[in-house]
Amino acid sequence: MKSAPITFRDAAAVAATQQFDTAASDAAATRHASLAKPAGSLGRVESLSVQLAGITGRSVPHVPGRPTAVLFAADHGVVASGVTPWPQEVTASMVKAICSGTAASSVLARQLGVVLSVVDVGVATRLNSSAEFDPNRVLESRRVRAGSRDLAVGPALTADEVAAALDVGASVAAARVLDGADLLVVGEMGIGNTTPSAAVISALLGVPAIACTGRGTGIDDAMLEHKCKVVDAAVARLAHNTDPLRVLAEVGGLEIAAIAGFIVGALAARVPVIVDGVITLAGLLVADRLVPGVGGRVIGAHRPVEPGGRLVLDALLIDPVLDLGLRLGEGTGALLAVPIVCAAAAILRDMATLTEALG
Amino acid sequence: MKSAPITFRDAAAVAATQQFDTAASDAAATRHASLAKPAGSLGRVESLSVQLAGITGRSVPHVPGRPTAVLFAADHGVVASGVTPWPQEVTASMVKAICSGTAASSVLARQLGVVLSVVDVGVATRLNSSAEFDPNRVLESRRVRAGSRDLAVGPALTADEVAAALDVGASVAAARVLDGADLLVVGEMGIGNTTPSAAVISALLGVPAIACTGRGTGIDDAMLEHKCKVVDAAVARLAHNTDPLRVLAEVGGLEIAAIAGFIVGALAARVPVIVDGVITLAGLLVADRLVPGVGGRVIGAHRPVEPGGRLVLDALLIDPVLDLGLRLGEGTGALLAVPIVCAAAAILRDMATLTEALG
Repeated sequence: MKSAPITFRDAAAVAATQQFDTAASDAAATRHASLAKPAGSLGRVESLSVQLAGITGRSVPHVPGRPTAVLFAADHGVVASGVTPWPQEVTASMVKAICSGTAASSVLARQLGVVLSVVDVGVATRLNSSAEFDPNRVLESRRVRAGSRDLAVGPALTADEVAAALDVGASVAAARVLDGADLLVVGEMGIGNTTPSAAVISALLGVPAIACTGRGTGIDDAMLEHKCKVVDAAVARLAHNTDPLRVLAEVGGLEIAAIAGFIVGALAARVPVIVDGVITLAGLLVADRLVPGVGGRVIGAHRPVEPGGRLVLDALLIDPVLDLGLRLGEGTGALLAVPIVCAAAAILRDMATLTEALG
Repeated sequence: MKSAPITFRDAAAVAATQQFDTAASDAAATRHASLAKPAGSLGRVESLSVQLAGITGRSVPHVPGRPTAVLFAADHGVVASGVTPWPQEVTASMVKAICSGTAASSVLARQLGVVLSVVDVGVATRLNSSAEFDPNRVLESRRVRAGSRDLAVGPALTADEVAAALDVGASVAAARVLDGADLLVVGEMGIGNTTPSAAVISALLGVPAIACTGRGTGIDDAMLEHKCKVVDAAVARLAHNTDPLRVLAEVGGLEIAAIAGFIVGALAARVPVIVDGVITLAGLLVADRLVPGVGGRVIGAHRPVEPGGRLVLDALLIDPVLDLGLRLGEGTGALLAVPIVCAAAAILRDMATLTEALG
């Protein structure tokens, strides 16, 4: 049984001492070259298994038997500033749908054999139980506060709230690893959360809102223009300060911080983690700034529609597994990548060598 | 229990009376628009489930519970003309490796829960049983002849051999459907088979060898140039005759014909079929020319490295699910697409509507 530190500070300290294990990945690449197939003929599947070796430090990576997804849910005060047509209450409704097994993520997790849970790190609406919704089943309440403040008006979070959310993420990763998770999937749910994600990416990559802000769930031109103005104005308050904790507090969100903590916690335990779309990529960018090199030690699930997500993939040199035009969130892209990641590990472990096959 | 015709002629007659069911696909698209997610936010996953509805004629397609892969194996006389560095005996060795569970396809099928078998439609080397290799387990002998003749010298097959191989494909599809297969995967194994595939594609699409001939398992520039000359010279003998049966006989291969028959057989039974890389796409192109519209009723697994495969995808307007830089064959790309196809069906069947989720 593996274990992981339960505070973000400890997880970051452990993760910072580790690196992508090039000895393990080189050994995996050498093994691949000996297998019963033309060299390189499995393309990205081969590089995925080599990547798993480097992430886990095992030249023949374990084939995951208990893939486990965590969706971090939170609300965002910025919805009051008109960046989305959806009311804030939809976050809670969707958390209930996920927990009831009828949301996209719950259907995918069930179909693909992934253990799924939701961590409420800041949902504004009270999640009362009902006949269909038993919050104890897949929902974990770790609410730091009832949603972030409106980043269009002032700082979204205090430094203490950011620290608490990072700790939630790290401790949830540790708990899942303790439960036997051997492949982690991270996703999110939160109405309005493409706005803080775009702002975090804008601030950390030094790009204007127009380059990293998208239509989220499908807003029109006028709302997109307004959303960009909100992002630019909020990021301007940082005055080019790129301290990731300061960026999270000024323009971030509770689930973005928790995702950063979760990724670092997973890596500290050397359990591979698959990141999903733009919100989790914003969290990853924060994690990479807090613990340099983290971006090279995760698996990118898919090329998201949101432009900010694509910028993070490019900035961190991540080659995602899928390109399916996804913009739903809820970890859906990362869930869809799970079978391919597991298959890549199985290929490296179970194939005969060319000598064995032709001998 | 479904049933399918067991001769190619009967299967083609049935498939020709059917069409992509637009009433079913329209109903699926309407249902998708009502589900608890922003419209269109699952991208290709949504269009996949809509496609399944049109292929199967069910507005809420069945979620496959018994995906079944068939790899058609054959040899090619053209290897005597120096188009590949691999000796012909490797086909038989790889068939044994697949049947022994240690080839790429066998590892993927096991990991992804797909029933796998190999149909020998023309392997030149005798497949003797051994301690590791029990041919009765996953190998079905339906040998039409011991490999095709050298297409560099003259016609690869007779009209009767082509007809027999088409029948093998159709009858194997019918048998798998009778066994309960509810999603079919088609792949191949055959040293040298990218050459007849390129020739079939060149002849049927009217493009020169240089545009549709690739490096297969990884040949050098000199061998590629020679391979193109072989393809151009063989296709020239057809004198622009694009009758698909004539093309198969002059420059085709036994597994290419069997794959065409298999695809038509699967569609006649309204069971969806996932096609793999360039060889199966050559077979699909033949099937589409024999039964117009077949190309719009299959699922393309991945964008192959081989240029001929890409041309067929473009010609038949197929948007493949994956793009992983694969060039192995053995149905590997199609196997990797299986969980995504099944997940797409589950999404359409099991998600709550937006009204249910927010109500």
